[in-house]
Amino acid sequence: MSVIRTSIGSVSADNDEFKQHAQWTMNACQQLGDVSQSPDYVDRRYLTKEHKAANILVAQWMRDANMQTWQDGVGNLWGRLQSVKTNAKTLLFGSHLDTVVNGGKYDGMLGVVAPIALVNMLNSAQIQLPFNIDIVGFCDEEGTRFGSTLLGSRALTGQWQPEWADLTDLNGITLRQAMQEFGLDFDQVDKCKVPKETLLAYVETHIEQGPVLEANNLAVGTVTAIAGAKRLSVNLKGMAGHAGTVPMQSRQDALAGASEMILAVEKQATLAGVVSTVGKITNRPNAVNVISGDTEFSLDIRSDDDSKRDACLQEIISCLETIAGQRVLTLSLALTHQAPAVLCSTTLIEQLDKATSAIGISPLRLLSGAGHDAMAMADICPVGMLFVRCEKGISHHPKEAISTDDIETTLRVLYQFVLDFNLAAFDQTT
Amino acid sequence: MSVIRTSIGSVSADNDEFKQHAQWTMNACQQLGDVSQSPDYVDRRYLTKEHKAANILVAQWMRDANMQTWQDGVGNLWGRLQSVKTNAKTLLFGSHLDTVVNGGKYDGMLGVVAPIALVNMLNSAQIQLPFNIDIVGFCDEEGTRFGSTLLGSRALTGQWQPEWADLTDLNGITLRQAMQEFGLDFDQVDKCKVPKETLLAYVETHIEQGPVLEANNLAVGTVTAIAGAKRLSVNLKGMAGHAGTVPMQSRQDALAGASEMILAVEKQATLAGVVSTVGKITNRPNAVNVISGDTEFSLDIRSDDDSKRDACLQEIISCLETIAGQRVLTLSLALTHQAPAVLCSTTLIEQLDKATSAIGISPLRLLSGAGHDAMAMADICPVGMLFVRCEKGISHHPKEAISTDDIETTLRVLYQFVLDFNLAAFDQTT
Repeated sequence: MSVIRTSIGSVSADNDEFKQHAQWTMNACQQLGDVSQSPDYVDRRYLTKEHKAANILVAQWMRDANMQTWQDGVGNLWGRLQSVKTNAKTLLFGSHLDTVVNGGKYDGMLGVVAPIALVNMLNSAQIQLPFNIDIVGFCDEEGTRFGSTLLGSRALTGQWQPEWADLTDLNGITLRQAMQEFGLDFDQVDKCKVPKETLLAYVETHIEQGPVLEANNLAVGTVTAIAGAKRLSVNLKGMAGHAGTVPMQSRQDALAGASEMILAVEKQATLAGVVSTVGKITNRPNAVNVISGDTEFSLDIRSDDDSKRDACLQEIISCLETIAGQRVLTLSLALTHQAPAVLCSTTLIEQLDKATSAIGISPLRLLSGAGHDAMAMADICPVGMLFVRCEKGISHHPKEAISTDDIETTLRVLYQFVLDFNLAAFDQTT
Repeated sequence: MSVIRTSIGSVSADNDEFKQHAQWTMNACQQLGDVSQSPDYVDRRYLTKEHKAANILVAQWMRDANMQTWQDGVGNLWGRLQSVKTNAKTLLFGSHLDTVVNGGKYDGMLGVVAPIALVNMLNSAQIQLPFNIDIVGFCDEEGTRFGSTLLGSRALTGQWQPEWADLTDLNGITLRQAMQEFGLDFDQVDKCKVPKETLLAYVETHIEQGPVLEANNLAVGTVTAIAGAKRLSVNLKGMAGHAGTVPMQSRQDALAGASEMILAVEKQATLAGVVSTVGKITNRPNAVNVISGDTEFSLDIRSDDDSKRDACLQEIISCLETIAGQRVLTLSLALTHQAPAVLCSTTLIEQLDKATSAIGISPLRLLSGAGHDAMAMADICPVGMLFVRCEKGISHHPKEAISTDDIETTLRVLYQFVLDFNLAAFDQTT
């Protein structure tokens, strides 16, 4: 089953229209980027007033695109372009509306805003579809505020955990309290679960956050899989002491130990051909004139090859143990996150490739080194991802940049993808 | 001129009395240690309610010891045992009542509490002196709250700087505001200056914060000088990026660069025979899944030999520049503090040695690696310091420990020192 054409005009939008909607998408990302805790970069965290303001702004754009909107019980924003067909199933587009601390304007947001432009174009062309198009703006993917990632999408898939109620932010506010202050009820999150049978597929548009598309001179690419990741929290206990009186040889300096470990992480990851990052460090007492007594840091390690990743992690842990032993520091490790590689749906990969080819671009398949909401969504439906080139591969930074031309290409691919969407492949009840 | 004996009893206190006052000193330090932001360790910062509470508690002990008390315009607490002699000059004892973030019960406090015990003993023995004994509890030596150290003592010596008004604490409260909230006026601090001609000398009793006395099996030692120190703030700018997508080889990871630098600091200091410490680090954006874009750390370097210290610092800076160059990081350095070595008064050194010998202990002269209020006080009067053995040399930590026996020895030395105080050597008007 294909598109139900009710329009008397052409199915495809004209060139000017793509340009115009690409510009609208660019402007919308800019405007959304201004909803931030900081004037200097985008900082929008889960259950804050910026979260609320972003949902209000995006909901208005959705309603302008003739969509019904609602906020679910975890704080995700939804819009629906209702199909003319009764009991239609749903093709879901989306990504996240939260950011890291010092973020940019496109990571996440593009995957919410570009589909709204798409719906606007479908409306303009008076195209009616035999399935609903839903767009979801996830409330928390980055885990910036409470440390645990994918809170928004995991509420939809039934992976929400009761013990998360006690996760705390930097100010000691628990997730439960923060939800209550936002007007949500932690104990009602289960009601957010989306019944599998209502969904056809989930498609996420996202900036690449890496250098591959730029190196291949391509605006877009099709994601084949999302790399598996493990995260550890590493804690080191030494002995605090006075910076002026304890001889260098008698120190048990936790920060110096952590420094040696951070270099070991860097070295082992480079040798093994995986990526590993120490992005967060907390040092105590963290005073100019006191030798560090206690240091904690995060360790993130990723690869497209789970066994290569795990072998490197073992090597790293062995280095950490040696360093702790030599420096008489007490080492504790805790695994805080693990996600195996997630494969994208072969059918969706093929359809995204086909849509890309149809607009005259050679399709490129690539791996996602970063995690995405699609990882959680893969639990309840086939997932596909379209990557968009970003300047120098920079993300999670105010310097994130994409071009209006690339957004135009993105909209062309998505438009073609929707028009040619193979409903039968996903809807067993059709 | 020596002691004016008005008592009909013996000048020296008996053994039991020393034991009893040592026990009182121990208990008082314990009680003072409970005045803390935290139940787990001592955390008492300038211009907080704990500062106020400590001043109230210590003032009561001073009044119980028959001293007049007052708080000066910067928040230092004073007590005076008035001499029977008119226009008497003052022998000043003291140390600080503030602590580091995760501090112990003796650093600073011992030098305020032990002199109160001394005054109690002088009162018991009905000894009247031809000079006042003042005790000062300095409000800020550590610089924990506003970063700048010796705020209390520098108010007395006229080294207070107008630009300190804008120093801020972690919550963005300025020193001016904090003083106002405490009931003090930044613009009136000049009135705290102590006229040089009123002071005979300043004597500070302090835990050693190092291993020398313990290694020599001695309870006390005489300080000859306070080591010079330099402090720098080191800022590194790299490029934040996504932890999953930026290859190891293309990273400009500020935290990894800082780690390499911290190890270089450790290595160079060890080679040069000085002490150097990176005690404080701030990393941005400090998120689990973001490569560090910006890291700042403190560097503290000390030696009894200013030229050796400066040569080592030059070597360290050269390493830092090399590392920054190799890693394509932007390095900025700022000198935040420098203090040349301060010599203790030869006469006071001799008198402290003599008092130590008089009670049957061989005097040991040693250097102070840590800074003390005596550094500032040296600007306006001769200074002397008596170090007291502390367990394993640990300080700036809840595990700081001293023995009641060592306090007893300390009180014997101080008592003897006061009885034999050579007023003529310090009072040119006598």
